[in-house]
Amino acid sequence: MNKIFNPKPETWSSILKRPTQTIDDIEVTVKEIFKEIQKKGDEAVAKYTSLFDGVLFENIEVSPSEIEQAIATISDELKTAIQLAKSNIEKFHSAQKTARVEIETVEGVQCWQEKRPIQKIGLYIPGGTAPLFSTVLMLAVPANIAGCNEIVLCSPPDKSGNINPAILYAANLCGVTKILKVGGIQAIAGMTFGTKSIPKVYKIFGPGNQFVTVAKQLATQYGVAIDMPAGPSELLIVADDTAFPAFIASDLLSQAEHGTDSQVILVSTSLELIDKVEKEIQKQLEVLPRKAIAEKAIANSKLIFVENDKTALELIDEYGPEHFIICTKDEDFYVRNIGNAGSVFIGSYTPESAGDYASGTNHTLPTNGYAKNYSGVNLDSFTKSMTFQKISEKGIQNIGKAIEIMAEVEGLQAHKNAVTLRLKDLKIEK
Amino acid sequence: MNKIFNPKPETWSSILKRPTQTIDDIEVTVKEIFKEIQKKGDEAVAKYTSLFDGVLFENIEVSPSEIEQAIATISDELKTAIQLAKSNIEKFHSAQKTARVEIETVEGVQCWQEKRPIQKIGLYIPGGTAPLFSTVLMLAVPANIAGCNEIVLCSPPDKSGNINPAILYAANLCGVTKILKVGGIQAIAGMTFGTKSIPKVYKIFGPGNQFVTVAKQLATQYGVAIDMPAGPSELLIVADDTAFPAFIASDLLSQAEHGTDSQVILVSTSLELIDKVEKEIQKQLEVLPRKAIAEKAIANSKLIFVENDKTALELIDEYGPEHFIICTKDEDFYVRNIGNAGSVFIGSYTPESAGDYASGTNHTLPTNGYAKNYSGVNLDSFTKSMTFQKISEKGIQNIGKAIEIMAEVEGLQAHKNAVTLRLKDLKIEK
Repeated sequence: MNKIFNPKPETWSSILKRPTQTIDDIEVTVKEIFKEIQKKGDEAVAKYTSLFDGVLFENIEVSPSEIEQAIATISDELKTAIQLAKSNIEKFHSAQKTARVEIETVEGVQCWQEKRPIQKIGLYIPGGTAPLFSTVLMLAVPANIAGCNEIVLCSPPDKSGNINPAILYAANLCGVTKILKVGGIQAIAGMTFGTKSIPKVYKIFGPGNQFVTVAKQLATQYGVAIDMPAGPSELLIVADDTAFPAFIASDLLSQAEHGTDSQVILVSTSLELIDKVEKEIQKQLEVLPRKAIAEKAIANSKLIFVENDKTALELIDEYGPEHFIICTKDEDFYVRNIGNAGSVFIGSYTPESAGDYASGTNHTLPTNGYAKNYSGVNLDSFTKSMTFQKISEKGIQNIGKAIEIMAEVEGLQAHKNAVTLRLKDLKIEK
Repeated sequence: MNKIFNPKPETWSSILKRPTQTIDDIEVTVKEIFKEIQKKGDEAVAKYTSLFDGVLFENIEVSPSEIEQAIATISDELKTAIQLAKSNIEKFHSAQKTARVEIETVEGVQCWQEKRPIQKIGLYIPGGTAPLFSTVLMLAVPANIAGCNEIVLCSPPDKSGNINPAILYAANLCGVTKILKVGGIQAIAGMTFGTKSIPKVYKIFGPGNQFVTVAKQLATQYGVAIDMPAGPSELLIVADDTAFPAFIASDLLSQAEHGTDSQVILVSTSLELIDKVEKEIQKQLEVLPRKAIAEKAIANSKLIFVENDKTALELIDEYGPEHFIICTKDEDFYVRNIGNAGSVFIGSYTPESAGDYASGTNHTLPTNGYAKNYSGVNLDSFTKSMTFQKISEKGIQNIGKAIEIMAEVEGLQAHKNAVTLRLKDLKIEK
């Protein structure tokens, strides 16, 4: 672990630098597969599923009987846990519904804003050893609340041609309309162009490896929107001597086990706490099944000592962490003033895992400093805001002159004319 | 104009096809200028300003005395018009403020969502013959309401080294914090990397030519967000025999004068109206100063006859127009059911120009079918949504077990451990 004492502001950006990724080589591959799927559809999808996942299908759609079988294999304990998580996610995202915003800006000029669902969305859920069924909840639940009519889920099959049962259980529970056994670049390309088996969607959500990340970026060049740019997961904790070192260490490690490129940072005004946390990390690390991964991430992690809360806040705001845990005496200072963070966890009994699974907040969050300019996934991510206006005869008389003058100065005579015609018409009638 | 009668649904996508743009050649140029500005900063900015705009500056920042001079040249009539527009835009965008969304999902688990301003934003305003000061209002007003602390405006200088006075007047009126005489690719690259004169920003807004569009796309690869992907402006009108042909024609022309690649479509259940509108267009076109441009756009435009409102709606929803005017007997049918449109204008006295300038709604809207998956610019475009949670001892006891089970099944033992440690600690204390 790297311990840094009182770093000068001019060094912050290099201290807080995230690991850089090179994606140039991947891009060529991704572009080729996109072109092939655009041209050949399902035939090309099957080719790449066979190549990357080692299976060949007649039909990539998961059948009702496969879903039934999956449900039967899930323990009651896990079902109860998933249902509690779903209920909390539903409560929090339902609370985010907004009413129509309507005002009369001047007499006779009625303007309103409404959010309407994005009609067709695609969810990508990675396969592999850790089945991310929690991400199914985080994406399908708000999509359903928003009223999206088509919710397609793609996830890669294992060697026997199956999707993990927990993913199928969650997808079925949360109202996914179609589940497809297709992963990686071929899934993203399929949802971008549409094939006979894979519906074309308007927006793609979900995590994935570097290939999926690059494929999602490429999809945006073909008119598809994506949830947000992706990067390795990260956690920053600010803690003082009122914090429990064992809790802090456990949170840092829960982030570190995600991947060797995970970012883990502790900022503290207490040298004693930093030392204690360091020792606790070594202790807890020993017994972790994913020790090898966590160890590498921890080796790159940073323990930063600063003199006071004000400096800590400035440094944290410059970093803009995806996850931000506050365990300090004056927690309100950070809550009130933090400008850039994805999701904020306050106090000793609020571990980051709570937000990952079951508290109700969303775990799809901006990494890589994107907390400065992107929202985490929320109800609005599944809608778009539309505006409406209705102007009466009185209304156009109230604002018509202003429009004519402005259009004239901007050199747009036809814009002016559309108003002039109407104003003239109203004068004749009176 | 192309008249199309009762097109079959399978032909809609080809009929409604937008003009395609080729941007491959531009990309190389844009990338080169980005690399040079990243490396050489202001020196490279000056080089390209000299090359593209034909001027050389000591200092690209607009001075207070330049702003004063500009204000003095603006007529009182224009000032009044701009102030009315500003007031309406303020009213409509202020009404979009959302309160903190806060709920207790289960006892002891407090979750909330807050919108906080994107701290540094950049506005790009094109130069040229038509000074788009209206766009300054549409972007700077909501940025100010959102509370963005740094609002940088870049606009290219004319041959004498000046920015149009109406742009300066509007920028000053709406609280822009810094105005810079720099345009095109070099402005976007400057705001992406930051130079000594140009602040680095987190999100870039505003229209521009193909070079600016490609530059904004490239900026997203360097961590900067943008308002939305850009494309030629477009208008679709649905009208029946209750509509005034002269008004419809004037609206179609106001869209057509934007550029030769503007999209103009009329959908109607009345053959008579289609004929009348066609004649009106020819008549009104004759006297337009931008006749040459409008004529080309009109030549590519489409007048589509359909049998009934239901078919019309389906066709319009498949297109997803940026601007959508409704002039029909049963306007509510369209208002209620339209799923994809940027901004909707209802009734005979609601010309599109009203929304372009002064009604209060925003005119920065999704083109090119992006109304299916992107919002137009609104107050939220200048904020990001952050979530917060605070869990009590009781709260972690309520959801802890569910987290442990889910983390275990996902194979994330350290995530589980962060909860287990806390639950154990609480048991010991009790």
